[in-house]
Amino acid sequence: MQNPRHRRSPLVSKIRRDAFVIHLLCLVLTQTSLADEAGRLQEFSRSRMEMRHDSLDSEMWSMDQPVYVGLQDGLKKADKISELPGQPGKATFDQYAGYVTVDETSGKALFYYFVEAAAEDPSTKPLVLWLNGGPGCSSLGGAMHEIGPFFVNRDNKTLSKNKYAWNSVANMLFLESPAGVGFSYSNRTSDYNNTGDRSTAADAYTFLVNWLERFPEYKGHSFFLTGESYGGHYIPQLANTILSNNKIINTTMINLQGVAIGNAYLDDDTNTRAIIDYYWTHAMISKETHTAVQENCGFNGTYTGLCRTAIEEANNEKGLIDESNIYAPFCWNASDPQKQHASVTNNDPCASYYMRSYLNRQEVQRALHANTTRLKQPWSDCSNIISPENWKDAQVSMLPSIQQLISSGVSTWLYSGDIDAVCPVTSTLYSLDILGLKINSSWRAWYSDDGEVGGYVVEYKGLIFATVRGAGHMVPTYQPQRALSLFSAFLNGKLPPE
Amino acid sequence: MQNPRHRRSPLVSKIRRDAFVIHLLCLVLTQTSLADEAGRLQEFSRSRMEMRHDSLDSEMWSMDQPVYVGLQDGLKKADKISELPGQPGKATFDQYAGYVTVDETSGKALFYYFVEAAAEDPSTKPLVLWLNGGPGCSSLGGAMHEIGPFFVNRDNKTLSKNKYAWNSVANMLFLESPAGVGFSYSNRTSDYNNTGDRSTAADAYTFLVNWLERFPEYKGHSFFLTGESYGGHYIPQLANTILSNNKIINTTMINLQGVAIGNAYLDDDTNTRAIIDYYWTHAMISKETHTAVQENCGFNGTYTGLCRTAIEEANNEKGLIDESNIYAPFCWNASDPQKQHASVTNNDPCASYYMRSYLNRQEVQRALHANTTRLKQPWSDCSNIISPENWKDAQVSMLPSIQQLISSGVSTWLYSGDIDAVCPVTSTLYSLDILGLKINSSWRAWYSDDGEVGGYVVEYKGLIFATVRGAGHMVPTYQPQRALSLFSAFLNGKLPPE
Repeated sequence: MQNPRHRRSPLVSKIRRDAFVIHLLCLVLTQTSLADEAGRLQEFSRSRMEMRHDSLDSEMWSMDQPVYVGLQDGLKKADKISELPGQPGKATFDQYAGYVTVDETSGKALFYYFVEAAAEDPSTKPLVLWLNGGPGCSSLGGAMHEIGPFFVNRDNKTLSKNKYAWNSVANMLFLESPAGVGFSYSNRTSDYNNTGDRSTAADAYTFLVNWLERFPEYKGHSFFLTGESYGGHYIPQLANTILSNNKIINTTMINLQGVAIGNAYLDDDTNTRAIIDYYWTHAMISKETHTAVQENCGFNGTYTGLCRTAIEEANNEKGLIDESNIYAPFCWNASDPQKQHASVTNNDPCASYYMRSYLNRQEVQRALHANTTRLKQPWSDCSNIISPENWKDAQVSMLPSIQQLISSGVSTWLYSGDIDAVCPVTSTLYSLDILGLKINSSWRAWYSDDGEVGGYVVEYKGLIFATVRGAGHMVPTYQPQRALSLFSAFLNGKLPPE
Repeated sequence: MQNPRHRRSPLVSKIRRDAFVIHLLCLVLTQTSLADEAGRLQEFSRSRMEMRHDSLDSEMWSMDQPVYVGLQDGLKKADKISELPGQPGKATFDQYAGYVTVDETSGKALFYYFVEAAAEDPSTKPLVLWLNGGPGCSSLGGAMHEIGPFFVNRDNKTLSKNKYAWNSVANMLFLESPAGVGFSYSNRTSDYNNTGDRSTAADAYTFLVNWLERFPEYKGHSFFLTGESYGGHYIPQLANTILSNNKIINTTMINLQGVAIGNAYLDDDTNTRAIIDYYWTHAMISKETHTAVQENCGFNGTYTGLCRTAIEEANNEKGLIDESNIYAPFCWNASDPQKQHASVTNNDPCASYYMRSYLNRQEVQRALHANTTRLKQPWSDCSNIISPENWKDAQVSMLPSIQQLISSGVSTWLYSGDIDAVCPVTSTLYSLDILGLKINSSWRAWYSDDGEVGGYVVEYKGLIFATVRGAGHMVPTYQPQRALSLFSAFLNGKLPPE
């Protein structure tokens, strides 16, 4: 899985002679990219191109089923993590992990990891939920590879402190969602084939209500929703579910203050169009192919044969690069990490492999109170059980949902790492163009603590858009310091510094 | 000079209140960027916008004056470098440096540094001239910061081996051109104010003829011209001068095989247009400002007030970034190098400061046989004597010259680091569009020795264009391995590997 180029090499010379080999090659690459969030989203997006537009879900919806609330007595204490294996010294904050049942009948239980703020009094800091995308990828990836307090070392056994951990400013809650992802599961395995946007939002909401029963001190606390990628669906949907349920008497009031989504997947057609434009303007494909796509693709929900052929040609032309960070190297061998190749950041391209190995160690799972039911599959960054093809419902466009959020007065931030070609910055810019919001404060550079341009920011009426310079799909992985600057600004309700 | 952001900080809060301060700020920034090749070219390009188009030089020309040839007896031996101060061990190749007089009357002398190929028999390797741009920047910058055998360490005193030095495959000749640049000089200082494209090409040609008298073993040897930036002027002009002089009986025949120009400055208007498009597609400026530029600028040689205001707004919006590598950090303090900030490569942003300090050491100048006439100014990357405003003639467009080169059958390569906003990849692509050459072999990825996509390549009839992924304006500085792969392919007359 780590070495797409070496896998490919023996095939390369045959490519021009043998169309069958090309097809085979595509399969190999798809499987390769399945491993991570960016690859998963690509697979999802491509599968959507094959669907009839009018069969897709474009209506607005909210959760209307009654919410299951279970007894949570004593569970918080049981979830307390004494120490993570290989942890560097004693933590200056409390950590918890465990399961929250969201459906008693089917025994559906979602796994969470909660890291309290590293502050003298965590109650002074907001509560923040983080959701990785996919669909089907684990937020433990976010915790161990992006913004959590610890990252896994090359030995796959010990941890290092993350200097730019988000729990320096907030209480961070990581949820593996939906059931079938990571350590989350259902006893009724048919549930895995009946998942989609609606049930994911409903289960995440049920999780929250129950988790707040387990951690009642956070009831009514300032609450923020953050995440990235397919979180562009999860987050507005969960946010709107919270807002509509908040209106019902006798439900748990969740004090939602804001949402922030990174490199959001917001709109099927806009994203596909933006990717091809991004390839062209970043000199990854020829002008001829870009023109062919423009001439043959309407990006209006249907994709003709000519359009698909042109898009396929674009994919061939760009070669074998990591689209989640177009300037990054691949991980060539995670068990024998070479000296890093030139990359946009100093991020180790093999880091996700160390994480996977660590989270599959028995002592780690014991410390996390995870995998208590002996799951059949190992933990992986993106689920092999929840597949994009079996994702039952997904809204074609999240723009109405974003509009609804804005109307509700919730602080809404979109941010984009600018070297991601999976949900490129152009995609969010095109979406903002469609929303047509009034500009309150025009485009300008913002500066990170290190004095460098961290990216750019523009304030619309009701929405803030910011870029993160030199960051890929998983922004905090590639630009940790800039990401933390931006996150702090978001929590403080201020534009990032100029 | 090293810390534009810190200089700027005290001013930042006043910016919106005080237009005068903005003007002052612009002056500071211009002076700051004067230090390097990319900044120099920006200054040149901006000064061109203020000129009347019809006063600019757009004709084809070639050198017609008789060539001065001096006696070179014994000078090769005198130029031999025994060892560079701080050199790591004994070199496995010979090095030479010294002056070649190009005008006896005025005592105009050009300084060169010659590094023989690190091969058992250097005579089996081609001779390659490297020219940095500017106008007014020194090719010793190329030697000590890009492709030479040694780079200067942080101590400003010792050298390290460059693993990807170009003399692993060629005999490399670095020329400081024209007089007034680096250690090159004229005894008639008024010469410094009477320089431009024509005299630069003529002097470089005279240099070559005389140098070949000093090193007669390289007469008739395979010869290649390489360089970057304003080398987009120097190289085609020198190449065409060589070709036309080769036709004259009794002149030195120079066996020119090919030219390769990186991030070439080829066409005033095209480059300016391409920069603004590059800013927009790389999310550095707002759509509104990009649209304002498109609507107000014709890019046809004249720049109206509205157009200039829109371009100025674009420059404000993008903030304080290193345009020669839009993802790189600045050098904050060269005398106390901090831990590097996140960058596209592992290049030390302060490296050019160590080089400057090293080349101004007396023992280094002695070893190089440089500065024998006690110049008034210290060595600097780009000359303070040769200023862009006093550059007397420069062709508006080099495209006819490129066309002429192609017609002559000389192997012509253009290559572009893709994260440079000074002569962006789009600029070269737009120029190629204007040339309208037939495509022989269509756009594809090429792979470097490390297995990564090194960039993209397309073969036109008579010209090869290649990109270098993740490289800025000075391609080999940012992506040394990829640059060497490409250079080897160029010398071998083959497309880079797929």
